[in-house]
Amino acid sequence: MSSGFKHIKKGNICSAKGFLSGSIYSGIKSPGLEKKDIGIIYSEHNCVSAGTFTQNSIVSPSVTWTKSTIDKGNIRAIVANSGCANTSVGEQGFIDAKEMALITSKALDLDLDSVAVASTGIIGVELPMALMRKYIPQIEISKNDGNGFARSILTTDKRTKEMAVSFDIGESKVTIGGVSKGSGMIHPNMATMLAFITTDIDINESILKNVLTNAVNKSFNQISVDGDQSTNDTVLILANGQAKNKKINTEEEAETFASALNEVCIFLAKEIARDGEGNTRLIEATVNGAKSQKDANKSSRSIVSSNLVKTAVYGRDPNWGRIMMAVGASEIELEESKIEIFVNDIQIVAEGKTTPYNNQSVVIAMNQDLIRLTVNLNIGKSSGTAWGSELTEEYVVFNSAYTT
Amino acid sequence: MSSGFKHIKKGNICSAKGFLSGSIYSGIKSPGLEKKDIGIIYSEHNCVSAGTFTQNSIVSPSVTWTKSTIDKGNIRAIVANSGCANTSVGEQGFIDAKEMALITSKALDLDLDSVAVASTGIIGVELPMALMRKYIPQIEISKNDGNGFARSILTTDKRTKEMAVSFDIGESKVTIGGVSKGSGMIHPNMATMLAFITTDIDINESILKNVLTNAVNKSFNQISVDGDQSTNDTVLILANGQAKNKKINTEEEAETFASALNEVCIFLAKEIARDGEGNTRLIEATVNGAKSQKDANKSSRSIVSSNLVKTAVYGRDPNWGRIMMAVGASEIELEESKIEIFVNDIQIVAEGKTTPYNNQSVVIAMNQDLIRLTVNLNIGKSSGTAWGSELTEEYVVFNSAYTT
Repeated sequence: MSSGFKHIKKGNICSAKGFLSGSIYSGIKSPGLEKKDIGIIYSEHNCVSAGTFTQNSIVSPSVTWTKSTIDKGNIRAIVANSGCANTSVGEQGFIDAKEMALITSKALDLDLDSVAVASTGIIGVELPMALMRKYIPQIEISKNDGNGFARSILTTDKRTKEMAVSFDIGESKVTIGGVSKGSGMIHPNMATMLAFITTDIDINESILKNVLTNAVNKSFNQISVDGDQSTNDTVLILANGQAKNKKINTEEEAETFASALNEVCIFLAKEIARDGEGNTRLIEATVNGAKSQKDANKSSRSIVSSNLVKTAVYGRDPNWGRIMMAVGASEIELEESKIEIFVNDIQIVAEGKTTPYNNQSVVIAMNQDLIRLTVNLNIGKSSGTAWGSELTEEYVVFNSAYTT
Repeated sequence: MSSGFKHIKKGNICSAKGFLSGSIYSGIKSPGLEKKDIGIIYSEHNCVSAGTFTQNSIVSPSVTWTKSTIDKGNIRAIVANSGCANTSVGEQGFIDAKEMALITSKALDLDLDSVAVASTGIIGVELPMALMRKYIPQIEISKNDGNGFARSILTTDKRTKEMAVSFDIGESKVTIGGVSKGSGMIHPNMATMLAFITTDIDINESILKNVLTNAVNKSFNQISVDGDQSTNDTVLILANGQAKNKKINTEEEAETFASALNEVCIFLAKEIARDGEGNTRLIEATVNGAKSQKDANKSSRSIVSSNLVKTAVYGRDPNWGRIMMAVGASEIELEESKIEIFVNDIQIVAEGKTTPYNNQSVVIAMNQDLIRLTVNLNIGKSSGTAWGSELTEEYVVFNSAYTT
């Protein structure tokens, strides 16, 4: 998927000009390796911003607060915590989200409405505001703590997920940095998909919204770990204009930026899928030749969401019937006799029927860290890709072993 | 769910007047305990019929054939095989389905269009027509082989699923018998949900269609084993009028029949969920007080389809956050502060928040064979129930262990 943008070594949320971050351990979650549970991203300058949020009917008040700040259009900082989702706690949830923003705004000398909030962790437990009041003001903001912030949002993730790219627009060097955390879930935690992106591009806000929505549709909306959408899912982007490029005002002018943002979002999304609970490997399903973009996205997502495909990949079993059925189950338009299926680059289905192939080659292909399943529908021009994790015994043990 | 209809002891597909069946072992599948792989249901008299079929975009030609016979409205027999799904085999699939009907029609001295076909088993392999030609004519039809038919359609099911009820309409005794097989899947088999229902009621065909659709929406469409819809799913009902009741011509007249059919379909659907691969217990999720029937059905199905809920039940873990999230993930209308959740009869959530409960009682409740999860939305009058299986390590092993 790499389109040739320069990846910045140890790139992170502070790579773009004018963005700082900080993090601290307050004790909201038990001290793991990361030992951080509150983090702040801060822009030295005014930003335009955009966000996409969970479609779950149950929404964390932290999300509700952040949506309102996005609408006001003046975000300068994001404060995030792990260890507590601030969800299903009644009216106290919004009061606490707002106070968390207030504490942060005072510490950074910003307006209250300039602070977005994100929470991830246990559901049904109120935010420990005493810890927030004590520790948020102690967070030191700098150019050097991007990785600290990445650690501060982790829950059941096994590693941080961060990257940055740069590219030129005219004479100006533009940078995009991003960080994410995973969507795997474990009791008593309800982890969440969070992603924050910073960029120094100068861009019109409504163009930024469109570009972000498109990027999210190709990346975070195309991953499946356990198929469940959390109450706290949030993707936010801040753009502070410090690259001093000629301001982007049209979709055409935004093309390079859009490609770079896609690359960042897809990287961060794939890292989430790869880090799914009990998972060690990544399934990448691509559907080509679909009648519409919607069909391509939906059917590729259907493949990586299927428990039967997930277990088949885990078993190194090139079970093309399950892939066929998962495509059909998405109820898209297709002509069975035109379908082709490939595992990595080995064709196993032609004209909708199994075709002779070297079975051992396919099993070897399925032993790799990245298993690419490709379906050619051959009835249209749209392509979509989705990423998912295996389904392993370890997932079941991980998610059932905790008995109250 | 029992509404007091008389359950006939050892009731089956032959319990209603004028229905016979037969079965045989032809060798299409390996000889298990059931040792049957082709079965026939036969009506001595003309029938009205109705059917519901898979929504998968990939459809077995056996289903395509049967849809056309339903449209012609003259079904007298159903021939079904296990061991081969007759799916994804190109044009040969329809030729073979039609020949299977033809062989059966000749053996029973019926019109070709009077024979419906159903297939379940391996995908991508052609029907072994030599076996069909040899063994179908040998099948002996009688009143006594209902259980033989039930065995002939099994694939990875651990037991047969059959029942019959009777009730009075005026002076007439009406009987409904039914049989089903499960939807769990294992390589190289792709099992299917099949259900066949016979009744001697005298009923208008369009009323029968409506009553069946409603019953299927409350039963077979509300179960989840592994979330994947097969290419061969079929529910068929035949009604031959031999109860000699005053013919049912309106929805109101059909009310008692509809209740009885619901009971039969729900019984058969629950048996499928209970018999899911690697599963020993049944999850029953009910959502009450929804704004619409659609919302109630969708959200209850979302609960039993959630991998996180399935693993939590397996772990005897009353993880209300996962139930809350699964309800929300169905994107229905709700007011969080009005939500109540019960495990069996113990309330664990009130006003959208966790409420003090005796944890040990809940764990004990979750140790039972039937785990009832009830969600009261308290914003409307619609209720829906869905059934599902646990997600266990055994499921993963079962579905991944076969390495080609």
